[in-house]
Amino acid sequence: MLTAEIISVGTELLMGQIVDTNAQYISQRLAEAGINQYFRATVGDNHDRLYDTIRTAVERADLVILTGGLGPTEDDLTKETAADVLGYGGDFILHEASLAAMERRFSHMHRVMTANNRKQAMFPKEAFIMPNANGTAPGCILEKEGKAVILLPGPPREMVPMFDESVMPYLLKRNQGKLYSRTLRIYGMGESAVEDRLRDMIDSQTNPTIAPYALTGETTLRVTARCRDDAEGEALVRPVIEAIRQRLGDVLYSTHGEQLHEVCARLLTAQGKTLAVAESFTGGLLASTLICVPGSSAWMLEGCVTYSNAAKERRLGVLPQTLAAHGAVSRETALEMARGMRGTSGADFALATTGIAGPDGGTPEKPVGLAYLALAYEGGEEVHELRLVGNRERIRGTGVLEALDMLRRRLENI
Amino acid sequence: MLTAEIISVGTELLMGQIVDTNAQYISQRLAEAGINQYFRATVGDNHDRLYDTIRTAVERADLVILTGGLGPTEDDLTKETAADVLGYGGDFILHEASLAAMERRFSHMHRVMTANNRKQAMFPKEAFIMPNANGTAPGCILEKEGKAVILLPGPPREMVPMFDESVMPYLLKRNQGKLYSRTLRIYGMGESAVEDRLRDMIDSQTNPTIAPYALTGETTLRVTARCRDDAEGEALVRPVIEAIRQRLGDVLYSTHGEQLHEVCARLLTAQGKTLAVAESFTGGLLASTLICVPGSSAWMLEGCVTYSNAAKERRLGVLPQTLAAHGAVSRETALEMARGMRGTSGADFALATTGIAGPDGGTPEKPVGLAYLALAYEGGEEVHELRLVGNRERIRGTGVLEALDMLRRRLENI
Repeated sequence: MLTAEIISVGTELLMGQIVDTNAQYISQRLAEAGINQYFRATVGDNHDRLYDTIRTAVERADLVILTGGLGPTEDDLTKETAADVLGYGGDFILHEASLAAMERRFSHMHRVMTANNRKQAMFPKEAFIMPNANGTAPGCILEKEGKAVILLPGPPREMVPMFDESVMPYLLKRNQGKLYSRTLRIYGMGESAVEDRLRDMIDSQTNPTIAPYALTGETTLRVTARCRDDAEGEALVRPVIEAIRQRLGDVLYSTHGEQLHEVCARLLTAQGKTLAVAESFTGGLLASTLICVPGSSAWMLEGCVTYSNAAKERRLGVLPQTLAAHGAVSRETALEMARGMRGTSGADFALATTGIAGPDGGTPEKPVGLAYLALAYEGGEEVHELRLVGNRERIRGTGVLEALDMLRRRLENI
Repeated sequence: MLTAEIISVGTELLMGQIVDTNAQYISQRLAEAGINQYFRATVGDNHDRLYDTIRTAVERADLVILTGGLGPTEDDLTKETAADVLGYGGDFILHEASLAAMERRFSHMHRVMTANNRKQAMFPKEAFIMPNANGTAPGCILEKEGKAVILLPGPPREMVPMFDESVMPYLLKRNQGKLYSRTLRIYGMGESAVEDRLRDMIDSQTNPTIAPYALTGETTLRVTARCRDDAEGEALVRPVIEAIRQRLGDVLYSTHGEQLHEVCARLLTAQGKTLAVAESFTGGLLASTLICVPGSSAWMLEGCVTYSNAAKERRLGVLPQTLAAHGAVSRETALEMARGMRGTSGADFALATTGIAGPDGGTPEKPVGLAYLALAYEGGEEVHELRLVGNRERIRGTGVLEALDMLRRRLENI
């Protein structure tokens, strides 16, 4: 079995200015690919220390994967240092296609490309270059005597797509296998409860494997088969997914990795229905999450962030006496917001949120975290009372997920 | 100056099952304490590999801080391995106070303490023991020949309090110094352009140091002084920050690490002004970003996500003939959205966004990424045309930052 080591490069990592999510992401993908990892390192932007770290890793492992230090500045030394370790020296050549891509990118942004950016298009002539669709610095793979050093950019939104599109196929080819994965997403049951219910399956399964991943407020399982092709992979994972569904029930909301807002978008599109949202404590986050989905203009009519009472009355027709009698954070106000949003927008479904996100504004009767979600639709309406925990950001985020799950369950007639 | 290395122990880290927030936390605290870090490592629960990793770190650094592997199982090897490296052998003695604390903890939880837990109270006789208020495994500090190996439990809710209460005082006592940092935030100039302008300063400064780091769409500089106290630190960094401001001008929008929306919130609050936002392609992300700031209800009146033309007309009074003649994505529509939002909300400032976030909906005349931002206020209005790049998420994110910067500049009368 192949072994790999990940080296994260950047003084900002050593200073603790950012958390290293890249290393975790790559580790997960390597585990899926059946590649062993025994060591991982983090090192600053310093030639000698980086050299020692890469050399040690190259001696121990088949694959060394580095993230960071590919940028235009003098601090960005990863490519030059890796080339030194492999004995390629400083004899770099210009990769014309990368330079052209970089120039197009700057020109499109109406920005002038400074001369130091050119450095990002310089590579040892032996390098296999990986284009960067989401940033300026291309990645590359340097091979020597059966070892490979793989250089990736540091920003996760550049690193992740490059890893998926260019590195993973390379790794699978080297490892002479293929992976077939399905991602299962769960809302409304915590990671430990899910693992309790699946413990025996998780422990006994070897192909496919079942790996839990915890994301913020949601639980995700990845079922991964090692296989010759997709058809064999699907045949291996399908019965396992069905067994998981039997155990978890309707908290399992997607077996294809969709997020809650994507499931809602798919169901609305399939049913030819439209949606409008009225938000108070979620403050635009619900609309913004729904609108993430490409093509959302087909079903998303509009949103109102009615933060003040005046806006709730004027935009949605919430009655002043309702606000006076029950307060803005109440079952009654939530329902009037949803009805008002549905009436003024003409949407088939209207979702409304009102709550206390904190840190201020809580009272003994209405503490921080109290929230009401309402859904109005043809022939019915419903309202949920929630007690959300955590800081302001967490309370708003969970409120959005709860609202989406409420809509999802209505659309699925659960 | 003292140097430290962090070693995170645990096969679950190498498998990517959890992200290593401990290392980031400790790194930040070490930076604050003025302790240098050049390397960080992650290694699995394996004696030989752990031994090599600790030995290398002890040779290079004054302090080696390990997290994880202090538990009761046979896989938990950190304490035994660290003792081996320091030559303390396996001659552990029972620490009675730790055993008693563990027994109280189990009894309080109405659980029976299994025999393997006793291992957690066994230490080399030279160890300085740190109690664990939030879990069973105590930590310890092993000193030898001026070096210290510090062992901490893996779960962050146990590690963090132990670090703060026991390790930090130990480190500050040893180091007799501190660091003072200020974070500068820049919008509208890329990392490489900023570095070009500051190159000679970055290269020549030693105390304070100037370190650039790039976050999504924004550039950040950290100016860090080594000093005896905060007053000396501030005296050291202030002239450097002023010199940076001279060179960068008004793209430098914060010298205290605030983000754009925080600066807008502070300026609106100070000026006693209110804001409303009308969003099309940003879809609630602008409102949601602004509402992140605690207390935003004081100045944020409302938002409208007018995704459809009908909503633009009904909510904001955009004229049908404007939409017909110029389209929803146009200078004219953006201005009418801002004016309409200001008029209907009564806010002092109204920001409007309209654009094409993609991936569909672009045409040769109006490509994906084309966007207009408008700002209406007492006695004036302005509109910006933008060409944004990247995927849908990036286009929306950059649109929000541009809108916030537009508001910030108006509030600062730039």
